[in-house]
Formats: sequence, structure tokens, C-alpha cells
Amino acid sequence: MAKTSEYTTEAKVMVPPLNFAMVAPGVYRSGHPNRQNFPFLIKLGLKSIIYLSSDNFNKELEQFVNEQQIQVFHYRIDGNKEPFMEIEQKDISSALVKVLDVRNHPVLIHCNKGKHRIGCLIGCLRKLQKWSMTSIFDEYRRFAGSKVLADQEFIEIFSEHVPYDPEYKPGWL
Amino acid sequence: MAKTSEYTTEAKVMVPPLNFAMVAPGVYRSGHPNRQNFPFLIKLGLKSIIYLSSDNFNKELEQFVNEQQIQVFHYRIDGNKEPFMEIEQKDISSALVKVLDVRNHPVLIHCNKGKHRIGCLIGCLRKLQKWSMTSIFDEYRRFAGSKVLADQEFIEIFSEHVPYDPEYKPGWL
Repeated sequence: MAKTSEYTTEAKVMVPPLNFAMVAPGVYRSGHPNRQNFPFLIKLGLKSIIYLSSDNFNKELEQFVNEQQIQVFHYRIDGNKEPFMEIEQKDISSALVKVLDVRNHPVLIHCNKGKHRIGCLIGCLRKLQKWSMTSIFDEYRRFAGSKVLADQEFIEIFSEHVPYDPEYKPGWL
Repeated sequence: MAKTSEYTTEAKVMVPPLNFAMVAPGVYRSGHPNRQNFPFLIKLGLKSIIYLSSDNFNKELEQFVNEQQIQVFHYRIDGNKEPFMEIEQKDISSALVKVLDVRNHPVLIHCNKGKHRIGCLIGCLRKLQKWSMTSIFDEYRRFAGSKVLADQEFIEIFSEHVPYDPEYKPGWL
């Protein structure tokens, strides 16, 4: 079925979601999309969305992903908040397996603000890409701004096995 | 000729250039690459580099692009510095024509710090993509940090015709 909907009308202004950016070929990151971002999302031609939050989608976004036949992988995780709240390494590992499967591309990864949980996930992805810790933290802080949570520590100690399928891994890994 | 060189040995740590990020499929941005970034650049498989600076490449980078057969488009421009220094709209337009030609992809656009001149160019690119000014400035500031030059004004008033070839324009435009 063709991906058409009420949102496909040519928009005068394209509004990317909060903190939108490209991570790697086929992978985008952002904060929580809202209705005004839909024409922009359509242009990306998303095949899947990875959503890190304990909340459900609101009705609008729920309807949008159904209409657009976008597969949603929902990980119900809250952010790293010292001293007691911590993301589980296995959740990040599981989400990374989805990111590292070209059959899910193009994929948008988002949380609420597009800063911390996503920053944490992307940091771990960069580790798999063997980026230096300096550049990983630079990128993390570019989005997190002045509020830097325990995510950097999480990224540094992340050592969970990520059992992606080599047959479908992206060329940039 | 295959792209091989002394730099292709498997690096233990990949070091992206300063302020490296992906702009759109086939387009990357950064500060000035140095020798430790070469293995990372090789992995990107660059076909061309767009360099905005009044300076020449240093010998190392010169040699690297020759070896890797990367085409270089060098625009000798300085940054927007109020009240008297201003980037020429026609230079940005000309550079954008190179960016918007898939035959040059993957392309890396860089200046020295990867903040202001590049931010200015990318801002104008986002205008062509019809991004809202809010999101254009958000992105600009993410890289420029606290030192925001006259670039935002430049981006806002940029109106130069960009005569790209529709036959070779990227799908995301």
C-alpha cells in the first residue's frame, strides 16, 4: 500500500522534530515528534521508529505511524538519574540490534527531548563504531547542553554484547 | 585505482574530525581534518571535499586527498565578522551547487572549526530544504556554541539563486 495520507500535501515550511539530526546513513535522532513534524517525517520515508520512554505514544502519533506503516520498537526505559535510576545495558543492547539492521532503515530513534536517553544510546553506538571517547562525549554534549547526566559514565562502561546479524549490518559499522 | 594507502590499516580507535556530523544522506560536516582523522575519513569513502577557508591545505591533507583521489572544491572565504566582513552570497550559492550534486557524494564540507562558516552554509542549505528558521537556528547554535556571529542574519537574508542541476539533485532536497 502506498504511503499517502492527509499530511503529504506540500508543506510551505518543513519542521523537523526537536533536536533532529542525522546519526549515520539510514539513522536519525530527535525528540518526540508532534503533529507539525509529520510532513517532515514523511519526507524521510521512515521504515521504523525506536522509541525510548516509559510513556505511550499520544493518539496522533499512534495514528500517524499506523497510516504510514512505520514499525515501532518501544523500549520502556527512563533516563539515567543518579543515584538510583539507571538504564539497563541489555535494553540499550537490544535497541542497538534494531538500529544495526538495515532492514529497519531509515529509522528514527527518539525519546522526549532528544538529549539524554538518545544521547546515551548513540554514545554506545559510537563505541561499536570505535569512536574515541573524546568525540563520543563531544557529540553527547552537543545535544545534552549544560545538563549532563550519568550517561557519559554509562557510555564509558557499556560492555554488553550486541548480537546484531552480520548479514544485515549497515556498511558504516 | 583502488583507494589504498598507509592509513587503511585497521585503526583501534576512530577519531572523527572536530565537530563532525552528518548533514543529510551523502553529506558530512566538520572542522579541519588532521592526520589522526585519516582512517576515519577513509571509512566514509569520500568522493569530494568542500573547503571554506582563505588558507591552503597543509601538506599532509594535500597528500591525503591526492592519494585517495578525493576532489577538492576550495572556496577562499573568511567568516562573517561584523561590521565589515561578510561572506558573499554568490560563494555560498556556488558551494551549494556542489553539495546538491550527487555525483560529488559522499562529500565532506569543512572550514577550520566546523562552527561558523560551515554553519552558515548548512543554514542556507536548510533553507532550500524549507526548514523552519527555528530549526535552522537551533542546528546552527548546536555547533556554534555561545559565539554566534552574524551568520544567522546572513542565513535569514540569503536569497541568491542556487542553480543546481535537477538531474543530479539528491532525493532529500
